[in-house]
Amino acid sequence: MSESLQELSDRLQRFAQERDWEQFHSPKNLSMALSAETGELLEHFQWLNEEQSQHLDDDKKEAIALEMADIFIYLVRLAERLDINLMDAAWQKIAINEKRYPVEQVKGDARRAEEY
Amino acid sequence: MSESLQELSDRLQRFAQERDWEQFHSPKNLSMALSAETGELLEHFQWLNEEQSQHLDDDKKEAIALEMADIFIYLVRLAERLDINLMDAAWQKIAINEKRYPVEQVKGDARRAEEY
Amino acid sequence: MSESLQELSDRLQRFAQERDWEQFHSPKNLSMALSAETGELLEHFQWLNEEQSQHLDDDKKEAIALEMADIFIYLVRLAERLDINLMDAAWQKIAINEKRYPVEQVKGDARRAEEY
Amino acid sequence: MSESLQELSDRLQRFAQERDWEQFHSPKNLSMALSAETGELLEHFQWLNEEQSQHLDDDKKEAIALEMADIFIYLVRLAERLDINLMDAAWQKIAINEKRYPVEQVKGDARRAEEY
Repeated sequence: MSESLQELSDRLQRFAQERDWEQFHSPKNLSMALSAETGELLEHFQWLNEEQSQHLDDDKKEAIALEMADIFIYLVRLAERLDINLMDAAWQKIAINEKRYPVEQVKGDARRAEEY
Repeated sequence: MSESLQELSDRLQRFAQERDWEQFHSPKNLSMALSAETGELLEHFQWLNEEQSQHLDDDKKEAIALEMADIFIYLVRLAERLDINLMDAAWQKIAINEKRYPVEQVKGDARRAEEY
Repeated sequence: MSESLQELSDRLQRFAQERDWEQFHSPKNLSMALSAETGELLEHFQWLNEEQSQHLDDDKKEAIALEMADIFIYLVRLAERLDINLMDAAWQKIAINEKRYPVEQVKGDARRAEEY
Repeated sequence: MSESLQELSDRLQRFAQERDWEQFHSPKNLSMALSAETGELLEHFQWLNEEQSQHLDDDKKEAIALEMADIFIYLVRLAERLDINLMDAAWQKIAINEKRYPVEQVKGDARRAEEY
């Protein structure tokens, strides 16, 4: 993976600027677009069982990769508009989750944190 | 940004393995978790107007960064489970969008592609 | 409105049975289908401002009505599968919200309950 | 079920008016609130398998009924703001689906319409 998140973010900003689309890219609107794309992702999985969802044919996998790209793209756009460093936020969240879900307490149990 | 997507993905896989959570991380389930997190992101923006969504106070921005981290984390987990290269998919999608939305045709107009 | 929720629910169950689709209609799957449909609803509103969202042309309004119908249909299906009375649940939730958001305390303020 | 959709809609409008919340209830914002609530519904089902999702204990079922109530409430609010008759739209959509998915063609097969 040679391209960095920063390069991707810059490219997406340029794409929006060239089309005069930044006026539509408020954080509110981008959160909606991001969520709409996750709906399209769900649509691919909704009638599959878990086992089937792990063994997709190539066409389906390709379509899903492009839906995931859309989600990723809007997430990176939103991070840029809010001046949030997505990678730093992810590592910060992992540190929080390490404390919230200690290995010895949650092993093999996926109940939500607040249910403990 | 020193850490790469690959390092993040490896760390998340280890987090799941240590907790014996990989059994829950079918692509179907991960798509649901990803979508549930986008719901939490929307919740932060739903009663703000677009202008307000661009000017968040520090507490709100911090909370939103952590919601975006959750989305990012599940997206990276899902990509790993499906053996999809997220960064490659994003650049592939940009190439598709370049053709679908030619600058001269869509400038300043955010209508969806299928409406043209 | 002459038809009742019960008649709608019965009709939807018959629709699924005729197609041998009840096997796909687990609560888990129906929650995904419901959520995927809300994504399609969001797509109609994501680039509109709030004012525009209140003044839709007839074609757009018709399309949105059918998306809302999809959401309604999956919600009624899910209620049937879980033996939940949707109308009773709604009135129960209103009673809860009456206590959670006392008029004198929240007037003109849409912040979420937990932020008080 | 003694209460009608119209009574529910009127009650919800009064709830919003008493709190001066109608200013926040643009169709755009309501679509976001509706979608955020479907995220909370997904959260209940994301780590369950299909079989488990059909056999919920009473506490979980009660919590899910209230999430579904939230979705229903925002859907009814949105219909009121857009002057859409939700029940009519549902029956109209059933008629469309009858043509789109003929019994003899789709029996036992849940693939999406566009895949035929």
